[in-house]
Amino acid sequence: MDLIIKNGTIISPTETYIADIAVKDGKIIGIGKGFSEEEATVVDASGKLVLPGAIDVHTHLAMPFGGTVSADSYLAGTRAAACGGVTTVFDYPVQRSGMSILGLINEKKAICEEEACIDYAFHCCITDLNDGAILDEMEKAVEEGITSFKCFFVYKGMMVDDGTFTKLLLRAKEVGAMLNVHAESPAIIDLNIENFLKEGKTSPWYHYLSRPEYVEAEGDIRAVHWTKNLDASLYIVHMANKEGLEAAVEAKREGYDIYVETCPQYLEFTSEVYKREDGRNFVCSPPMKGQESQDALWHAIKTGGIDVVATDHCPFQSYEKDWGKDDFTKIPNGCAGVENLYPYMLSAANEGKITFNKAVELCSTNPAKIFGCSEKGSLTVGKDADIVIYDPEKEFTISVDNMHSDYDHTIWEGVHLKGYPTMTFSRGRLVYKDGAFVGEPGWGKFVKRIGRK
Amino acid sequence: MDLIIKNGTIISPTETYIADIAVKDGKIIGIGKGFSEEEATVVDASGKLVLPGAIDVHTHLAMPFGGTVSADSYLAGTRAAACGGVTTVFDYPVQRSGMSILGLINEKKAICEEEACIDYAFHCCITDLNDGAILDEMEKAVEEGITSFKCFFVYKGMMVDDGTFTKLLLRAKEVGAMLNVHAESPAIIDLNIENFLKEGKTSPWYHYLSRPEYVEAEGDIRAVHWTKNLDASLYIVHMANKEGLEAAVEAKREGYDIYVETCPQYLEFTSEVYKREDGRNFVCSPPMKGQESQDALWHAIKTGGIDVVATDHCPFQSYEKDWGKDDFTKIPNGCAGVENLYPYMLSAANEGKITFNKAVELCSTNPAKIFGCSEKGSLTVGKDADIVIYDPEKEFTISVDNMHSDYDHTIWEGVHLKGYPTMTFSRGRLVYKDGAFVGEPGWGKFVKRIGRK
Amino acid sequence: MDLIIKNGTIISPTETYIADIAVKDGKIIGIGKGFSEEEATVVDASGKLVLPGAIDVHTHLAMPFGGTVSADSYLAGTRAAACGGVTTVFDYPVQRSGMSILGLINEKKAICEEEACIDYAFHCCITDLNDGAILDEMEKAVEEGITSFKCFFVYKGMMVDDGTFTKLLLRAKEVGAMLNVHAESPAIIDLNIENFLKEGKTSPWYHYLSRPEYVEAEGDIRAVHWTKNLDASLYIVHMANKEGLEAAVEAKREGYDIYVETCPQYLEFTSEVYKREDGRNFVCSPPMKGQESQDALWHAIKTGGIDVVATDHCPFQSYEKDWGKDDFTKIPNGCAGVENLYPYMLSAANEGKITFNKAVELCSTNPAKIFGCSEKGSLTVGKDADIVIYDPEKEFTISVDNMHSDYDHTIWEGVHLKGYPTMTFSRGRLVYKDGAFVGEPGWGKFVKRIGRK
Amino acid sequence: MDLIIKNGTIISPTETYIADIAVKDGKIIGIGKGFSEEEATVVDASGKLVLPGAIDVHTHLAMPFGGTVSADSYLAGTRAAACGGVTTVFDYPVQRSGMSILGLINEKKAICEEEACIDYAFHCCITDLNDGAILDEMEKAVEEGITSFKCFFVYKGMMVDDGTFTKLLLRAKEVGAMLNVHAESPAIIDLNIENFLKEGKTSPWYHYLSRPEYVEAEGDIRAVHWTKNLDASLYIVHMANKEGLEAAVEAKREGYDIYVETCPQYLEFTSEVYKREDGRNFVCSPPMKGQESQDALWHAIKTGGIDVVATDHCPFQSYEKDWGKDDFTKIPNGCAGVENLYPYMLSAANEGKITFNKAVELCSTNPAKIFGCSEKGSLTVGKDADIVIYDPEKEFTISVDNMHSDYDHTIWEGVHLKGYPTMTFSRGRLVYKDGAFVGEPGWGKFVKRIGRK
Repeated sequence: MDLIIKNGTIISPTETYIADIAVKDGKIIGIGKGFSEEEATVVDASGKLVLPGAIDVHTHLAMPFGGTVSADSYLAGTRAAACGGVTTVFDYPVQRSGMSILGLINEKKAICEEEACIDYAFHCCITDLNDGAILDEMEKAVEEGITSFKCFFVYKGMMVDDGTFTKLLLRAKEVGAMLNVHAESPAIIDLNIENFLKEGKTSPWYHYLSRPEYVEAEGDIRAVHWTKNLDASLYIVHMANKEGLEAAVEAKREGYDIYVETCPQYLEFTSEVYKREDGRNFVCSPPMKGQESQDALWHAIKTGGIDVVATDHCPFQSYEKDWGKDDFTKIPNGCAGVENLYPYMLSAANEGKITFNKAVELCSTNPAKIFGCSEKGSLTVGKDADIVIYDPEKEFTISVDNMHSDYDHTIWEGVHLKGYPTMTFSRGRLVYKDGAFVGEPGWGKFVKRIGRK
Repeated sequence: MDLIIKNGTIISPTETYIADIAVKDGKIIGIGKGFSEEEATVVDASGKLVLPGAIDVHTHLAMPFGGTVSADSYLAGTRAAACGGVTTVFDYPVQRSGMSILGLINEKKAICEEEACIDYAFHCCITDLNDGAILDEMEKAVEEGITSFKCFFVYKGMMVDDGTFTKLLLRAKEVGAMLNVHAESPAIIDLNIENFLKEGKTSPWYHYLSRPEYVEAEGDIRAVHWTKNLDASLYIVHMANKEGLEAAVEAKREGYDIYVETCPQYLEFTSEVYKREDGRNFVCSPPMKGQESQDALWHAIKTGGIDVVATDHCPFQSYEKDWGKDDFTKIPNGCAGVENLYPYMLSAANEGKITFNKAVELCSTNPAKIFGCSEKGSLTVGKDADIVIYDPEKEFTISVDNMHSDYDHTIWEGVHLKGYPTMTFSRGRLVYKDGAFVGEPGWGKFVKRIGRK
Repeated sequence: MDLIIKNGTIISPTETYIADIAVKDGKIIGIGKGFSEEEATVVDASGKLVLPGAIDVHTHLAMPFGGTVSADSYLAGTRAAACGGVTTVFDYPVQRSGMSILGLINEKKAICEEEACIDYAFHCCITDLNDGAILDEMEKAVEEGITSFKCFFVYKGMMVDDGTFTKLLLRAKEVGAMLNVHAESPAIIDLNIENFLKEGKTSPWYHYLSRPEYVEAEGDIRAVHWTKNLDASLYIVHMANKEGLEAAVEAKREGYDIYVETCPQYLEFTSEVYKREDGRNFVCSPPMKGQESQDALWHAIKTGGIDVVATDHCPFQSYEKDWGKDDFTKIPNGCAGVENLYPYMLSAANEGKITFNKAVELCSTNPAKIFGCSEKGSLTVGKDADIVIYDPEKEFTISVDNMHSDYDHTIWEGVHLKGYPTMTFSRGRLVYKDGAFVGEPGWGKFVKRIGRK
Repeated sequence: MDLIIKNGTIISPTETYIADIAVKDGKIIGIGKGFSEEEATVVDASGKLVLPGAIDVHTHLAMPFGGTVSADSYLAGTRAAACGGVTTVFDYPVQRSGMSILGLINEKKAICEEEACIDYAFHCCITDLNDGAILDEMEKAVEEGITSFKCFFVYKGMMVDDGTFTKLLLRAKEVGAMLNVHAESPAIIDLNIENFLKEGKTSPWYHYLSRPEYVEAEGDIRAVHWTKNLDASLYIVHMANKEGLEAAVEAKREGYDIYVETCPQYLEFTSEVYKREDGRNFVCSPPMKGQESQDALWHAIKTGGIDVVATDHCPFQSYEKDWGKDDFTKIPNGCAGVENLYPYMLSAANEGKITFNKAVELCSTNPAKIFGCSEKGSLTVGKDADIVIYDPEKEFTISVDNMHSDYDHTIWEGVHLKGYPTMTFSRGRLVYKDGAFVGEPGWGKFVKRIGRK
């Protein structure tokens, strides 16, 4: 045996029980009692929770956006992830007009081979069908384990219209892939921005008002409508509003193959943050919404309407955020999160808002299932030994100083958590311990995923 | 007194009663008994129904479309209208890129002054904001009694995107106008057509399949969504599908200022007609839908969900329809209807499907109220004497031979009606009697309408 | 001509227009201009509204209840009605175990022949089927113009279970009658009362808490459920809560033959009144509800969900209300209202909350239609000349001193109204003028109603 | 080690994987590979599924009903259960008027100690509060591990009214118990039966017509309404109709603590069976419903609306069923099922209708969680070794001849299943093997359950 984690309280999506976990060659090979400790590293997890590593299916590492590049490199982002109990990250490379998607992914893979501290996978953002060539390429991408794609309803130069969206839905269905969508509605946003700037309304509060609840809802409702009627599959990223959420949840209840993700920032903050002096740091799209939407998100988490919590990790440096001091449209959109995801959701569990089982389901089991990571997502014999040890008694206050990214500030500054991870194992290798990263760049492997048929 | 209609059974939206109607100078001046018959034309309406003239708020006369012009001139169209008990028609002039709307309307008015056999009004179709110039012009149009505008979600060169649509909604609200919308969703239609033509599926049945229920529904749902959230006013023309109808009806129940129109063709025919040999003659957009949608339309008529029945009258000649014999996309879209509207709905009442009061409400009272025709819409003292005498015992079978348009065929051929109008009065003047047009071109006057505030 | 009302603004449910009304032999015989004034009383209504008299379809006159008898005799109640613009009242005689319903009604008719100052009709409350004898008698009652019945889900000794309720629904359907229901749910009320009294919670506030929103809603939902599934007809009296209202409105939208009544007290007061020192005076069942329910009632009034406003007039004297000073269960249930109904709803119209047309529809046209008063409900040629002249400029503050009932206090004390009736005509006879009753007991006639088939 | 099950495919509610299971002292002590086989019975499960034993939470053993006693004794019923892969049964002792509940349960326990072949638990049916004494006793019952109670809305002498029902809901909440309800609506059933018998409609088809969809729905809707508004917990047994199901599912989605059970007979048969010659054998209450309801049940199973499948096992002998040959009201209500539950649901999984994980969740994990069987419900280290080995290739046709009950016929006769259990272990002891019962009466132990707080 290589590793034995003893006496911990194991959390699965449905059970909570005390047992030992035995690991060999990066895999879980036994759960129970009395494993031979010979040659094994033995970790005593008494009084601790033992959890499957989180899978953050929504990050943007080293992404060109808003005239700059997001602040975390693949190295920094995956290092931070490991220190937050995340053992797999999904990155979103963005195809640009004319570009091949496999070429793009291979480029990113090459970087990750050098830099990634934990395992990684890619969704591929499609912005241009290249006269249909991309539709052909999608099949090859699935064969290579890229089984999900994404499109945007907003962002000039990246966004697709309903014609392209429906073509992608149908093609994804054919090749057994999942289509992810960023659903907001561009027309009214542009109109709002035009009016606000004309009226001198330039503070971050107008970022929210230019993209209020109903703007996001329209995108969700439309995406759900096409998915239902084309009997396709859809994954809605970063759901933040109540009305769109309800449309998606209703469709799920009707039996459609639709999944909903939200992010910790929507669960913790409301649009009120845009009235703060540092409101620009919170600018992301979709923006945080009102209290009623936040309540709806928590309600959906508890009642099964939300399947996944992921981060949309996309930090920018302070000086970049400052570009929009006098014009909210100049603020690069995005915030940090990958290191906060699991601790935040587990703290919510620790405080009784949800169960630990639910936190595991949302951050690990469901992402693995939805996106075809067959070796990940739970502490089950045969799976990768991606394991987090969590101390429910540890008090932790988030600060840019105790984070492991390259950014210079965080919207999570000062947020207090009850409980915190003390160790993270990636395929049996310790990569994080007691506040310190102890892994190495290049350890992470590409996760070849299984398609939906 | 100029005219006394005696002993008829008067139908209002809420009452049915026997009384005489006295008319002077084109106005109704008394309802009751014992009016002086001196110098008056006296019409005995014993055993007949006496109804307010219908208002067909949806016609396309002499409209350039699909490479030709719709078959009814203003003269022919208004003549046919009169013979079907319609005493006011609304035409839809279509602004083209760069064009002024007032110029366009004045052009149409000039034609109508010569040709119109009954009163007329205009909605104006907006296809291009001309960098905002049209938004300015809308206010002047309302002052001149053009208090409604329309936009299309489909048809290349005419359609508007959500940006323009929402600008129009907001501007219409500011100037006290109503915005009408043709709601279908272009993207999927184009995709469907592309696929069908590629596969050699060229019959009219594929016209339906390229624009099925959910395609129209998407447009309705989106239009309703923006209207609700901008707290604007909306009138949805030619509703033909169940799902979109239900979205609109739900919004109405929530108290939003939304109105729904359907057309006789959707109440009488289903998509099955596209399987007929003469299926191309039935090609219009949106196409007839399935039985479930038709049932939903009748249900909504009975339960208040539909406000107006109008015709979308837009006939083409047989040789034009034939252009699409081998390619449904080449068929000019549109069918005849203005002369059939009132007889069809009254026949439905006569057969017990709805009440006569409801038929009057749908075809006369509601259109007048929604579109600001303050002198029209019911047999009330002070209103224009636009009166129809209807014989509930008359049997009538529609045929191109007994119609008064210029078209050479009709989709209504062979449809049997129970009851038929025997006289139509336009402001007290007899314009139709027992199958014959007895009016004159140029009699019709422009209806200057009142805005919504 | 007997009477001509000149130059007034006539209000119908759908139109507002200026014309004269000519009356002869108690009937409206003309609307228009230029009626011969020979031998006629001429009333100038310039600047005034001319309205159909209200029909209060929910009163309890001289009703034995709670160990006493409601404070208004048929004389006092109909006198007060006339002074509030009500020209027809419906009373609710209550059958007791073993009693015949026709006998009961004849008894009440005999009293009304002597006392009634305006026209009157009866719904009959059924509490005991007398082994089916009552089901037989219902048919005869309909023949005699009693075309509606009522049952209670609450009140020991009066209430019926679902077995009896469904039998009544089915029998009413067979004989062409309407079934009215007082829908509250007894079980939980008794449990609540038992608990409250045990805990010493005896103030009127606990009257509300013992019958909160969901208790009424349960009765409504159940009544609607049976009605839908038995395809019967139902009229729900005094709807006061949101959830039950929504269930009924949804069923109406589905096309079921269901009608909803609310009362002015639910539109004006909320459950907060039970915290007032004189809270006991407001005790009625169902009690006033919370703000959300009141808002829902107004919303339904505006959007067509509520068909009728009537009063549930059932006043008690102060000394009787005082019986419950220390125990809310000892307070006789009921409040005054018949004289306030029309002024209150018209004042709401005058202040822009609804239209005058809607007020007329709710208080006159709909009640007449729903309950088969073919000669009542609108100012139409041929109908009874039940006419109210209303001065929209008059300011009026309700006080027990300016009311015309026999009660010694009113919950409406101090409520200010904008506009007030200045004259009431009952079948052409002036019965109220400028604050004074000028009619006579015994003038009122029994309204023989028409059944539903 | 006592027992090692090797190489099987283990099914949990969320995972499917190959591993060995090690059992000692009746408990699962390890899952993985390489357990010491010393002194162990080793079972090779290669190519087989290894499942947690089913928990049938709805049986009526030796129950007095309809003038007789249900055909399976505790011995026969638990023997049959074991042979169908059920390792825990819940029985429903019925308190009768005046009776203590603990006395009743102790009586049943005494019988089970002698007879039970597998583990057993009790819900207790309450029919009479004994002036509140039962409410007191409920707390003691919970302390003794009886943490659920049941009441009936139907059956004279057993049914409770809403007053008692709401008292039970509130009391169950106080003491941390679950209330189960048989929801049908008595009034209309009695009325229907009276009418049918009067009209000579006596075949089993009228059993269905006397209790159609909406009759069951009313009970469900009412039960859900009270539960929501009292914020209590509810478990609805044997849901068979669509409308009631939807009400419950909607409440679940709103976050209420409501659970829904259905039974295999409602999933397999529709009301059409009552037209069969042997229709009387299918008589149970609620009866099988129409196809639309059955489709809704399957839909809810797939989309999470149904939590549990259990059997309502309550067989009667043919001669007893024959009592109702000429009068459906004389047929004892109830059918066999305990031995068919798991094989039926697993066969549905085997045929692709649901997943095996879902079958396990419905028949084992959820019942254990909902009813507090902390040692049961999944193959997890530390739990009871209640294990079923299932051969997915085995073909099986149900017949009274291959069942292990005492009844003489079964409604499942001739139903073909794909896959069948080959072994059942109860706390590690083999009790069923390849068609034969190999356990012993008295082996079964009382399951002391944990309350809800």
